[in-house]
Amino acid sequence: MSKPYVLGVDIGGTNTVFGIVDARGQVMASDSIKTLKNANFDDYINELHEGVERLLRANDAEDKIQGIGIGAPNGNYYTGEILNPPNLPWGPVIPLAEKVSKAFGGIPVAITNDANAAALGEMTYGAARGMKDFIMITLGTGVGSGIVVNGQLVYGHDGFAGELGHVVVKRNNGRICGCGRTGCLEAYCSATGVARTAREFLEIRTEPSTLRDLQIEDITSKDVYDAAVAGDKLAKDIFDYTGTILGQAMADMVAFSSPQAIILFGGLAKSGELLMRPLKNAFEKSLLPIFKQRMPKIILSELKESDAAVLGASALGWEAKYRYEAPISIQPAEA
Amino acid sequence: MSKPYVLGVDIGGTNTVFGIVDARGQVMASDSIKTLKNANFDDYINELHEGVERLLRANDAEDKIQGIGIGAPNGNYYTGEILNPPNLPWGPVIPLAEKVSKAFGGIPVAITNDANAAALGEMTYGAARGMKDFIMITLGTGVGSGIVVNGQLVYGHDGFAGELGHVVVKRNNGRICGCGRTGCLEAYCSATGVARTAREFLEIRTEPSTLRDLQIEDITSKDVYDAAVAGDKLAKDIFDYTGTILGQAMADMVAFSSPQAIILFGGLAKSGELLMRPLKNAFEKSLLPIFKQRMPKIILSELKESDAAVLGASALGWEAKYRYEAPISIQPAEA
Repeated sequence: MSKPYVLGVDIGGTNTVFGIVDARGQVMASDSIKTLKNANFDDYINELHEGVERLLRANDAEDKIQGIGIGAPNGNYYTGEILNPPNLPWGPVIPLAEKVSKAFGGIPVAITNDANAAALGEMTYGAARGMKDFIMITLGTGVGSGIVVNGQLVYGHDGFAGELGHVVVKRNNGRICGCGRTGCLEAYCSATGVARTAREFLEIRTEPSTLRDLQIEDITSKDVYDAAVAGDKLAKDIFDYTGTILGQAMADMVAFSSPQAIILFGGLAKSGELLMRPLKNAFEKSLLPIFKQRMPKIILSELKESDAAVLGASALGWEAKYRYEAPISIQPAEA
Repeated sequence: MSKPYVLGVDIGGTNTVFGIVDARGQVMASDSIKTLKNANFDDYINELHEGVERLLRANDAEDKIQGIGIGAPNGNYYTGEILNPPNLPWGPVIPLAEKVSKAFGGIPVAITNDANAAALGEMTYGAARGMKDFIMITLGTGVGSGIVVNGQLVYGHDGFAGELGHVVVKRNNGRICGCGRTGCLEAYCSATGVARTAREFLEIRTEPSTLRDLQIEDITSKDVYDAAVAGDKLAKDIFDYTGTILGQAMADMVAFSSPQAIILFGGLAKSGELLMRPLKNAFEKSLLPIFKQRMPKIILSELKESDAAVLGASALGWEAKYRYEAPISIQPAEA
């Protein structure tokens, strides 16, 4: 029989946030633990289990969890493992689904990466309700993506589809990216990318800018945003540059899956017209004419940022199928 | 009750080829008419109908057709229409499915564009049998694509997904493309693109080449191929250039849908190692590291080129649902 709640877990580089979510997408209660406190993965799982049990007891939700959905960097839907995570200390292959389901007595678990979880959250509870074809772009420290085609998340043959932060937007002489290659979208259109653009512009150009009052190595995308809002021309140009590259890249994404909408999520997405005006200009200008008849919408996520990660992960909990089953031990037959 | 054959129709700019296909992908018989002979669309449909009926009678296949699948440039799966076809004279919106189903007494009809049809053919009868995630790239006069995700063709929200010939591979100063934009993959990696590269290389470079014996405006990709096979260095460099651009673009496609394989089809795909060596080098070098664990295969189509278009279109015939139904005319009630 199906139960009334799911558990959503978002494993971030700093915090692991978990919440009890109902079928309407209400986060009933949530809590968190420090992700990096335990160098041993089993200790981490124990602490997560204790924290969740405490939350369930406090909310009278024990035995009411249908499934557990987890969003984690490099989380693989097919294998239930985290593979080669850049910021987690528990080894190159982390058997996440197995350990979590075991700790929780066999509750079904499903995992995917954080951007895919965000797309599922948007489809289940947010701006993409009712959409069968859309692309979610998360603009944070990096650029992530989750792609939905025919109402299904695109996992690809190996579970790693949807790495649109790593399409190449600058083929020659592009910026070095964290993935080890050069010219990736993420190196330009993430919060980090905006800060890098600021440093480049400040070095190359000579005009005055309030950004010059800051230590150049400490400039953040927030600093650029604040300067642009205050009218700083160079800061505005940084957003023009960022939005133009993102809009051009998004036009290429449309040539792939012709989505009804592209949904933007994350801190940078909330830069308003500073980002959206150049982005939409470049997008419409770069779009193949055939797609202009039913132009894909560019919209912002409708999920509250504080809840979104947990909500997105929880959406996966409803369809979780993997259950840990204890090895069968042979018992003497009872006569 | 299901019937033993489908009809596959491939509407090309010169010929319309049609064939009777059985469930194992055997083309039992085929014939063709000239596509452009009839300036009036109804006349074209009548001639197609007559040609097909003749073929069916000659093969004792009347009343044995389960459905009709049609591949046509800009054919739209959802609307059953051809929209703004570049090379057909019958207007901007051609109600193809309706007219064909009507002419054939209500047999179900489905249409899509030619590259999508090729992908379906490959999945049903060719190199992609058993694959749930793959990308088909057709390298002909242009560059087309058909994308399969989760075992389903990707049509997108409007039926026009899969235009990978028009992703931008050269963002600044790119070649003009037939679509009206600049820098598209098609402008470099089609047969036409290879001929354009030849003209550029011959103008810019000074070394000897047997290609200089030809009228520069008449050089074709076949000329370049022949020269390269004969050892001409400049001609080989043209294939290096073409393969490198295609391999880089294909690595970006993997970041989208992480396919098990990318299947190449069309004349240029048969250039052997001249194209495949630089293509695979660039592809592997450009691939995001996470995809190298289960590297997507690059393979050639297994369909005979003469049959492929009809086979691909026919594959759509098995799932065709649209039927023309005559308007109901009110008859006096029989007492």
